Amino acid sequence: MNAAPTSAVTVSTPHGRYDIQIDGALLSSPAAWAGLPRAAQAVIVTNPTVDVLYGPALEQALAPHYGQVSRVRLPDGEQYKNWTSLELVFDHLLARGCDRQTVLFALGGGVVGDMAGFAAATFMRGVPFVQVPTTLLAQVDSSVGGKTAINHPLGKNMIGAFYQPERVVCDLDTLDTLPERELAAGLAEIIKYGPIADMAFFDWIEAHLPALRRRDRAALAHAVRRACEIKAEVVGQDEREHGLRAILNFGHTFGHAIETGLGYGQWLHGEAVACGMVLAAALSAELGLVSADFTQRLTRLIESAGLPVVAPAMDGARWLELMRVDKKAQGGEIRFIVLEAPGRAALRTAPDATVLRVISRHGARA
Amino acid sequence: MNAAPTSAVTVSTPHGRYDIQIDGALLSSPAAWAGLPRAAQAVIVTNPTVDVLYGPALEQALAPHYGQVSRVRLPDGEQYKNWTSLELVFDHLLARGCDRQTVLFALGGGVVGDMAGFAAATFMRGVPFVQVPTTLLAQVDSSVGGKTAINHPLGKNMIGAFYQPERVVCDLDTLDTLPERELAAGLAEIIKYGPIADMAFFDWIEAHLPALRRRDRAALAHAVRRACEIKAEVVGQDEREHGLRAILNFGHTFGHAIETGLGYGQWLHGEAVACGMVLAAALSAELGLVSADFTQRLTRLIESAGLPVVAPAMDGARWLELMRVDKKAQGGEIRFIVLEAPGRAALRTAPDATVLRVISRHGARA
Repeated sequence: MNAAPTSAVTVSTPHGRYDIQIDGALLSSPAAWAGLPRAAQAVIVTNPTVDVLYGPALEQALAPHYGQVSRVRLPDGEQYKNWTSLELVFDHLLARGCDRQTVLFALGGGVVGDMAGFAAATFMRGVPFVQVPTTLLAQVDSSVGGKTAINHPLGKNMIGAFYQPERVVCDLDTLDTLPERELAAGLAEIIKYGPIADMAFFDWIEAHLPALRRRDRAALAHAVRRACEIKAEVVGQDEREHGLRAILNFGHTFGHAIETGLGYGQWLHGEAVACGMVLAAALSAELGLVSADFTQRLTRLIESAGLPVVAPAMDGARWLELMRVDKKAQGGEIRFIVLEAPGRAALRTAPDATVLRVISRHGARA
Repeated sequence: MNAAPTSAVTVSTPHGRYDIQIDGALLSSPAAWAGLPRAAQAVIVTNPTVDVLYGPALEQALAPHYGQVSRVRLPDGEQYKNWTSLELVFDHLLARGCDRQTVLFALGGGVVGDMAGFAAATFMRGVPFVQVPTTLLAQVDSSVGGKTAINHPLGKNMIGAFYQPERVVCDLDTLDTLPERELAAGLAEIIKYGPIADMAFFDWIEAHLPALRRRDRAALAHAVRRACEIKAEVVGQDEREHGLRAILNFGHTFGHAIETGLGYGQWLHGEAVACGMVLAAALSAELGLVSADFTQRLTRLIESAGLPVVAPAMDGARWLELMRVDKKAQGGEIRFIVLEAPGRAALRTAPDATVLRVISRHGARA
């Protein structure tokens, strides 16, 4: 695998072009770190778990390129994706005399990537940063496309910026140490690309789910690459989510309500999205857009991936309230990503009564 | 004055084009508020003092354009330009069910404008905003050019974003209620444009300083317009401060050190910049770039404007430490805006010993 040329996907946005490198052993590959912006200092933003596993290796890989390399550890978990954690980054940067040239490296999963990205977007009004995602979910979704954010008690990712990285380095070796539950959460975002954009990929995932779950390297490499290709194409057409990009949020309107409603950190983001996709597909069927058969097929795949398909017990009014703060909402109307057909998604509203019926059919009893 | 056509200066950046409207009676002029992005809600961000004076008028002017208009009041003063105040805006926006279309209006001085702008840049990853500056300093400087930020205990404006407004509406009538001290602080930023860019304007300011201090409408209109023209030209060439834009920071490296060193809110920003310009001009003279005569001429004008020309007593090491976190610093080296000649500024380093000599000559005894 290491001898093979590094596989790269290019993302092109009005704010620049960058590569997603996808391969094994990238952390220790000099090519992964060459050609980045020069600076006196590099700062690795990570969490304690990932730092123990990969912090020293990345620090060593960066040492030839920067006068000083330091690490800052943020508490792990969605419930810490807030301003308090972000201040740890700013305090570290200012205490070490970092400047506008300083390059930040986000080493970890989606929480680390979102926070390091937002810190990079706002420290001194913007410094360069590099995504080094170490979870499957971050490799196929959150590290790509420049969405950065922190949570607000009233809603997920409510405060953030669109800010593109200089490069994304997906070292597939880092997936070897990923806990089972987080691997499954990543599979949720991979499965997502099928119904919204590519049913051939969906067929492939169904056929290769066992291989993916046992972390077969070739299967993971293909899945990460194809997911990044689809995401790069969508983001290239609509960086700021004025239209098309919203389809990447399939399952997320319900999913964010689950995450906020249960409290951040109860369900993993990928788990909430998985269950959210079941609800969004069922809503699409209820609206007469896709067949109930397709919803069942998607539900089976999600369940086989080890992911939840039954929504947590929450009051209907609470569901609606949580979904009304979704960023896609407009003038108080919730807007959902629905499937117009398997492989094609669109943004639309739905009557509250229909939404509540779907939730009650697919939810646990309160 | 109201019958005259509104004077407008256009700012063109890679991220869009917008007008700065400059006139009397703009708050109540329908033309000032026509053609902005449509939305269900508009939110006015202001402070208690300005809200009492102009909040109801702006709310009334916006009412025909938005379904709901509400106001959020932030505590007044540089010492409150922080995350805690920003959260008041986010809490208000989320509690009222605001969405990505919601338009924010910054009604107030530089502190309000910087915070409302940063809130707009980051709420749901960016919503439209309009600057309605009510202080002379905000009209000639902070509301134009898209710099938004909050302070960090270790340095001013350390966390922020470049984010351009949809429009800037400078109602000259609002200057009638400005306290004397704040009028003088605004004059500091007007005077700044002379030595860095336009000595003919500097001559004009010298000749019209008494008129400006007694708030002669025609004099203020000319000064605001010329300052905005120069700023628009500089920002149009270098929105993100990769080079030229830094000249607008003349006096600010010393000035920020004064503000942070004394504690935010002790000196007004314009007062600190005024004194900082004296130091920066003296440094330029010390480096053999301009004559001591010119430094004296600038010092006299600043003093005549009612602004401080003697630096506060601070330890030399403390000065250097505070200036090393300046955003223009690179690899630990402080970089100053110096005058290469009257009317022309440039970014350069200076030996610590020279800087300390200048400070000790122009500073109060510790």
